[in-house]
Amino acid sequence: MPKRVDPLERRRSIAEAVFRVTATRGVEAVSLRDVAAEAGVSMGMVQHYFRSKDEMLLFALDHMRDRVAGRLQARLARLPNPTPRDVARAVLAELLPTNEDSRAEAGVSVAFYSRAAVTPAYALALRQGLRGLLDVFTERLRAAQHSGHTRPDVDAEQEAASLFWLAHGLVGPLLIGLYTPETAQSLLDRHLDRIFT
Amino acid sequence: MPKRVDPLERRRSIAEAVFRVTATRGVEAVSLRDVAAEAGVSMGMVQHYFRSKDEMLLFALDHMRDRVAGRLQARLARLPNPTPRDVARAVLAELLPTNEDSRAEAGVSVAFYSRAAVTPAYALALRQGLRGLLDVFTERLRAAQHSGHTRPDVDAEQEAASLFWLAHGLVGPLLIGLYTPETAQSLLDRHLDRIFT
Repeated sequence: MPKRVDPLERRRSIAEAVFRVTATRGVEAVSLRDVAAEAGVSMGMVQHYFRSKDEMLLFALDHMRDRVAGRLQARLARLPNPTPRDVARAVLAELLPTNEDSRAEAGVSVAFYSRAAVTPAYALALRQGLRGLLDVFTERLRAAQHSGHTRPDVDAEQEAASLFWLAHGLVGPLLIGLYTPETAQSLLDRHLDRIFT
Repeated sequence: MPKRVDPLERRRSIAEAVFRVTATRGVEAVSLRDVAAEAGVSMGMVQHYFRSKDEMLLFALDHMRDRVAGRLQARLARLPNPTPRDVARAVLAELLPTNEDSRAEAGVSVAFYSRAAVTPAYALALRQGLRGLLDVFTERLRAAQHSGHTRPDVDAEQEAASLFWLAHGLVGPLLIGLYTPETAQSLLDRHLDRIFT
């Protein structure tokens, strides 16, 4: 009797193969064939779980968000009694490609942006994910303001958006080696200093 | 006698075809074959001017910078007596994909980032271009500070970097339709208000 495999686990392991192919050979190499080889399964197996490259990449995007959320939880769990500033800093730090995992994820993100212009489903997936994350981040900042952890006169919505997109803007210079993680982090820290008391 | 064609003009017209292919069909469609078809020339002609896809894309990146610089000059020429804030605002506005031309250019940029992870020549070209632009932008802000156009206590280098990368971070939400050009511009304007008097 063949070993039973959890379909979600299988899909996730294929998504991990997508990340590795992207990281080592670039976005254009992400074919069903290459992903199958990387995952150590047959192309038929990949096609069993994903009907198309688009479906595979959209699942990889979801899986990436789960990975980031998991790492963020772990990062927060390592902070004893985190302040609202600590939490905001941790969220922003997770957006930056500073290690092998997050660099591979940034590669997948870039692939999404490059396809979003021609494939509306990609633009929609990115919009929904980013909007959701930005809303949560803004809500956190508003709560910090209400509890007196920020300067009283900050515009929480505007400051949250500025921080969030600045962190996104720092992905590029990190990916190409123009900035070190420390330089990128210090730019974000200056903004945090301006917002939080 | 065949009409003589300026080689640089020919290369530029092929680069323009690269932009159109990227804008309408995405980064992965940028093959020598597709670009030749779009430019209305033979593949042999494209190969005469570019030995590889990489060489073609690197030239397109240079050409893109020329286009952006040209548009920036035109934008500044339309401003009567521009203040240092006007100039900074104009530079940042040119980084945003807000029309057909700049959206196509953003598509080419994304292609570069996605290849930079696996092709060092791309990372180098991006680093040099961005570093040069950021240095000029920082120098402008320093000059504005010396001439009393900014608040006296700003850190010109840090503020220039923050503005520059915030503008880069706003490329994504504009490309996928999460932000309107007005929303993106208003975030930048708030930062400019904080820096300039």
